[in-house]
Amino acid sequence: MQLRTLVVALLALAATPAWSAEPIEPIPVYKAKNPAMVELGKKLYFDPRLSKSGFISCNSCHNLSMGGTDNLKTSIGHNWQQGPINSPTVLNSSMNLAQFWDGRAKDLKEQAGGPIANPGEMAFTHELAVDVLNSMPAYKAEFKSVFGKDSATIDMVTDAIAAFEETLTTPHSRFDKWLKGQKNALTKNELEGYKLFKDSGCTACHYGPAVGGNSFQTMGLIAKYDTPNKAEGVGGLTGVDADRMKFKVPTLRNVELTYPYFHDGEADTLEKAVDIMGKLQLGRTYSDDEIAKIVAFLKTLTGKQPTFLMPILPPSTNDTPKPKPFG
Amino acid sequence: MQLRTLVVALLALAATPAWSAEPIEPIPVYKAKNPAMVELGKKLYFDPRLSKSGFISCNSCHNLSMGGTDNLKTSIGHNWQQGPINSPTVLNSSMNLAQFWDGRAKDLKEQAGGPIANPGEMAFTHELAVDVLNSMPAYKAEFKSVFGKDSATIDMVTDAIAAFEETLTTPHSRFDKWLKGQKNALTKNELEGYKLFKDSGCTACHYGPAVGGNSFQTMGLIAKYDTPNKAEGVGGLTGVDADRMKFKVPTLRNVELTYPYFHDGEADTLEKAVDIMGKLQLGRTYSDDEIAKIVAFLKTLTGKQPTFLMPILPPSTNDTPKPKPFG
Repeated sequence: MQLRTLVVALLALAATPAWSAEPIEPIPVYKAKNPAMVELGKKLYFDPRLSKSGFISCNSCHNLSMGGTDNLKTSIGHNWQQGPINSPTVLNSSMNLAQFWDGRAKDLKEQAGGPIANPGEMAFTHELAVDVLNSMPAYKAEFKSVFGKDSATIDMVTDAIAAFEETLTTPHSRFDKWLKGQKNALTKNELEGYKLFKDSGCTACHYGPAVGGNSFQTMGLIAKYDTPNKAEGVGGLTGVDADRMKFKVPTLRNVELTYPYFHDGEADTLEKAVDIMGKLQLGRTYSDDEIAKIVAFLKTLTGKQPTFLMPILPPSTNDTPKPKPFG
Repeated sequence: MQLRTLVVALLALAATPAWSAEPIEPIPVYKAKNPAMVELGKKLYFDPRLSKSGFISCNSCHNLSMGGTDNLKTSIGHNWQQGPINSPTVLNSSMNLAQFWDGRAKDLKEQAGGPIANPGEMAFTHELAVDVLNSMPAYKAEFKSVFGKDSATIDMVTDAIAAFEETLTTPHSRFDKWLKGQKNALTKNELEGYKLFKDSGCTACHYGPAVGGNSFQTMGLIAKYDTPNKAEGVGGLTGVDADRMKFKVPTLRNVELTYPYFHDGEADTLEKAVDIMGKLQLGRTYSDDEIAKIVAFLKTLTGKQPTFLMPILPPSTNDTPKPKPFG
């Protein structure tokens, strides 16, 4: 009996992943369930004809050459309107508990419809976007082969975009290699940064495979956050005072690429972001040396960026509604 | 001796390409001389940090998902400014005798510097663009490995962009297959369209591998061209009255993808473009049936679109000058 107990214990140990004691888990390699839908979604993601102007696509503000963001404080929308909030990265966004900074969309599918119809972003309507797509035989054939229906609907459009976005994960970061047991994947300095990150409490909010994205938290827990930005986070939706300045905790995966930081994009360097987080959320003033170590750790979270062939879009036909870039 | 003459004649015949009697030649398959420079150029082509706003890249108006154009009448520039002229396709543009509609740049390298510094387009300066690139170690290393110099210059930037653009050719169109002897590559209708295209004089201007791009011609030879557009073509550069409304003859390769047409983008369908060209340049009114045949032929000029992996751009550093999208 004692031997048997030992064997069971050993087997259990062998089945426990190397990172089981860590608050961060590696990003699993994603295997698309429906590659044809992903290909269609990729086209839609890159197609500016889903905007009124014919100029703005999903990729304009969630640029996959640039960490899935536009690297602007707040985005540029139709007619060069200044966006109200920083565009969060699309990378690993399938791991978020909800979408948008205030979580107003429950998933990627629901999110995808938002910017298309937002007058300050793509400034189109779902109906017009679908009309544009259904005017092109090549798109119709692709929708038919993926969804088995003769015409596209906005539901199919957002399903396909979400299916593409689900593939945009970034495994194989140096940190994940370390988590999986490759002990030389991190330098001493980076490891010290990680230890500090854990020990000072950052992992209370930034945990899980995406190192964030799992909860809503008040920006300015210990001290009030001063910002010229008007966004109120969840409070803007619920009207409840306790929800004011509550935002979805952003993923820290690829944070080296997703500058500038915070919902208002006001922190233009990682050093500044770490400093402010320490003071506002943890009541701790990190030394310059500590900040440098945490930043060194954060840069090990940059994973393998999604690589794929640029899509070639079906041409418009004589019947395709024309873009209206200027009024 | 007679036998020898016959052999020589037969050999000469064998060396004559199948298309030697045709005004249009197939597009040769391009083999990059310097793949590392092409890779760097591709990054620069997709990098919006070469613009003041950090939002507009070469690919914004010469979108390689959309026939190397933006498919707008005239383009959207910095601060949503309305461009003065239609963005010509970058596809096969290395075959043009000069660049821009008025030919003011002698080659792709000279062209590439234009939009970066044009206040109505990317609204940056060459100096600032180079500063941005030199602030990133990853870019500097790539410039070093390609050019052997420690810092980038605008000369290297435009060399690299031009090297990438030279790869953007579109061989293997159905028409080229036909030219090379694959007689079933075209339908009877398409061949009739080609015959009409030749016999009615279109090939006087639209000839060579790019089916255009080899000369400047007056828009409105037979009858004046009415347009709200203010561009005067070569005349705008030289001030010479005979040069007014002289524009570079555009390539007709991939014309199915490069709508809308003419320097002003006022013809939104190929049918309209063919009709106007017939009347204004040839003094001929094509019937609807003739127009349909010519359009059918023109659509056989769509070649294999360049396919390549989306580039992943090096991240900005704390020292990288910030984009200024809003003033």
